[in-house]
Amino acid sequence: MTALAASSAENPVQLIADLAKAGRAAQRILRETSSEARAAALILAAKRLRADSSAILAANAKDVGAGRERGLSGALIDRLMLDEARLEGVAAGIEAVANLPDPVGEIISSDERPNGLALSRVRVPIGLIGIIYESRPNVTADAAALCVRAGNAALLRGGSEAVHSNHAILSAFRAGLEQGGLPGDAVQIVPTQDRAAVGAMLTAAGLIDMIVPRGGKSLVERVQTDARVPVLAHLDGINHTYVHRAANPAMARDIAINAKLRRPGICGAMETLLIDAAFPRPEAVIAALIDAGCAVRGDAAVARLDDRVTPASANDWDTEYLDAVVSAAIVGGLDDALAHIARHSSSHTDVIVTDDDAIAEAFLSRVDSAIVMHNASSQFADGGEFGLGAEIGIATGRLHARGPVALEGLTTYKWLVRGTGQTRP
Amino acid sequence: MTALAASSAENPVQLIADLAKAGRAAQRILRETSSEARAAALILAAKRLRADSSAILAANAKDVGAGRERGLSGALIDRLMLDEARLEGVAAGIEAVANLPDPVGEIISSDERPNGLALSRVRVPIGLIGIIYESRPNVTADAAALCVRAGNAALLRGGSEAVHSNHAILSAFRAGLEQGGLPGDAVQIVPTQDRAAVGAMLTAAGLIDMIVPRGGKSLVERVQTDARVPVLAHLDGINHTYVHRAANPAMARDIAINAKLRRPGICGAMETLLIDAAFPRPEAVIAALIDAGCAVRGDAAVARLDDRVTPASANDWDTEYLDAVVSAAIVGGLDDALAHIARHSSSHTDVIVTDDDAIAEAFLSRVDSAIVMHNASSQFADGGEFGLGAEIGIATGRLHARGPVALEGLTTYKWLVRGTGQTRP
Repeated sequence: MTALAASSAENPVQLIADLAKAGRAAQRILRETSSEARAAALILAAKRLRADSSAILAANAKDVGAGRERGLSGALIDRLMLDEARLEGVAAGIEAVANLPDPVGEIISSDERPNGLALSRVRVPIGLIGIIYESRPNVTADAAALCVRAGNAALLRGGSEAVHSNHAILSAFRAGLEQGGLPGDAVQIVPTQDRAAVGAMLTAAGLIDMIVPRGGKSLVERVQTDARVPVLAHLDGINHTYVHRAANPAMARDIAINAKLRRPGICGAMETLLIDAAFPRPEAVIAALIDAGCAVRGDAAVARLDDRVTPASANDWDTEYLDAVVSAAIVGGLDDALAHIARHSSSHTDVIVTDDDAIAEAFLSRVDSAIVMHNASSQFADGGEFGLGAEIGIATGRLHARGPVALEGLTTYKWLVRGTGQTRP
Repeated sequence: MTALAASSAENPVQLIADLAKAGRAAQRILRETSSEARAAALILAAKRLRADSSAILAANAKDVGAGRERGLSGALIDRLMLDEARLEGVAAGIEAVANLPDPVGEIISSDERPNGLALSRVRVPIGLIGIIYESRPNVTADAAALCVRAGNAALLRGGSEAVHSNHAILSAFRAGLEQGGLPGDAVQIVPTQDRAAVGAMLTAAGLIDMIVPRGGKSLVERVQTDARVPVLAHLDGINHTYVHRAANPAMARDIAINAKLRRPGICGAMETLLIDAAFPRPEAVIAALIDAGCAVRGDAAVARLDDRVTPASANDWDTEYLDAVVSAAIVGGLDDALAHIARHSSSHTDVIVTDDDAIAEAFLSRVDSAIVMHNASSQFADGGEFGLGAEIGIATGRLHARGPVALEGLTTYKWLVRGTGQTRP
């Protein structure tokens, strides 16, 4: 917390303005540093996290204790809890980001005009990024590292459950940055849990350049409604797997089980299974899912395949279960599947399983989702799996960046024009 | 106007929802057409505009007559008026867009992961674009052509002064599209001048994918405040030209005069001239501007150079004159110039004139504007001059697209993942 910020803590709008001002000043310094200097400072931040592990784990224990007292669920406590191994994972994650190729300075395009003007588009940092997240304290370090790697400053607003952990992690992180010669204010945390501070971030147009909400539906919806600052939004993952008639049956079964059950609670999990009416033995896929512990809510045709299927209601086709539950329907063929997906998909990740390459290409071309897959589990929808090294989120909007967003999505570009005295006729 | 829209014309929210639904349905057809089919349909649209010229000019004469009755200024009447030559220019503009390379389908990146998954990012249309503009009827055809070329549908809301012209142009344009086998609803016009319809467009999240405001400050500010739909905003062009001490004096004079006076009313015009204290004979540049008809508002040091300079007030440094007026200051050197620009620039286009390449590169690197130029007039800030063929606007925001925005800025991408049955461990 800066002294300036502390003095304005009672007025959230002023507080955010003060923090943003400090963050923007730090970013102006940051954007003139070399890629190597930013990478080296991140390595020092990781080192400092390791060195400060006992302080961080003590702070985390406070959060966990308070969470237990407040009756947080076991799942939430697990998301919140750090131990030596998890903290080592956080530090290693910062190092991995430090070692990612830096997109800043990349020449996206260049051209020489007939009048001799030499044009190029060069990647530059976005500026000050606001990140609003919930209980996982590792996001503090991940998001800060991604922002700094690409020359951005970060203003973090974590969940109240993790407040001590977040401050301890951030304090170590900033110390590492400063040791590396970067301004500590490149990464700041909002020093209040007052919800009005979130509103002030969302409306800080001209002060915060982009907001990344990472959290549940209610957070994301509030952000979408209230934000005056551009948002990199992540909505639901209502993801479909379409088992085409020419699908390999064993592959279809394995992909369906993995897509739903590997981790049912992630946004890349399958929520609806569509099976082609001409696919042989659809009952085997349904039975395999149920045998593996998944509840299946089916349309009438699916219900006839297995006694254990419960009937799907109209809502099921628009539901992100994030649990070991799947909706399932029989469709007449590709066009039927495409129509169902166009109507119900949240445009996150949709998959076809088929050995017919022409059908696969038609599906890849015609499904208008951020990620469209052929013969693969939707659980691969992840920045790490996509080779991006890490991700700040998975964007389901249509502008700026789509799907897993990592360093490149944290940059913009500017046009450079080099002339020899040209004036416009 | 569709029949559906006519029935809901009394409720702007319902009207926009109906138009958007029709536009989205048309876009789903459009995005499955080939690039060649879209280009051919645009050529037919241009042909139809020429064929319908007498109807379009008659409609335009109505608008011009009504404008004169309402006492519109000569400049506004001129912006509104079409004649055979201008209409031919509009038709030729559509043909030029038809002949632009199509960004849709371009593979932005591709990668094969160690697990064998083949990833690629492919450009796709954004969807339904809302365009809100003021009096120039040529925007109707330009914007429609750019949207359709890149597979987008357009929902247009023009100014009331041009209502007859816009409808006549759109009617011919749609007839051409339909003749080319594309859905006419790919391009629709909002059939009411009710200002509530603009509000309904701005809040049509999930129905309209992007809003492009083209107009004056009050329109753009309303859009920025009220929009829940992502906006490709174009704010002021408070553009600087910094004459460095090592500038060629004749080049500095020519660029300053061109940047300000070629067309003082465009967003790429220079508004502030910064002259290095060590530049020899700054009075020659100031005198040349004044002699060419430009009013100069200077700081104390500039005022001493020429009797005709009037003193600048604090506001002048933040004013977009859009007229033959310039503010001018003497700065101590590069760092001073950078500080002035960081404080006052609207991040549109800033220029350095110098023969010192190291200083030029420092300026290009350190000025964080959408366009940064060396030894060229800021009036080159234009999609056509940048080789983009046309522009839907010049974006001064930081996300998605920056500077002149043409076809590429009207696209997004999706990730395609081709597997062989991979499941995630």
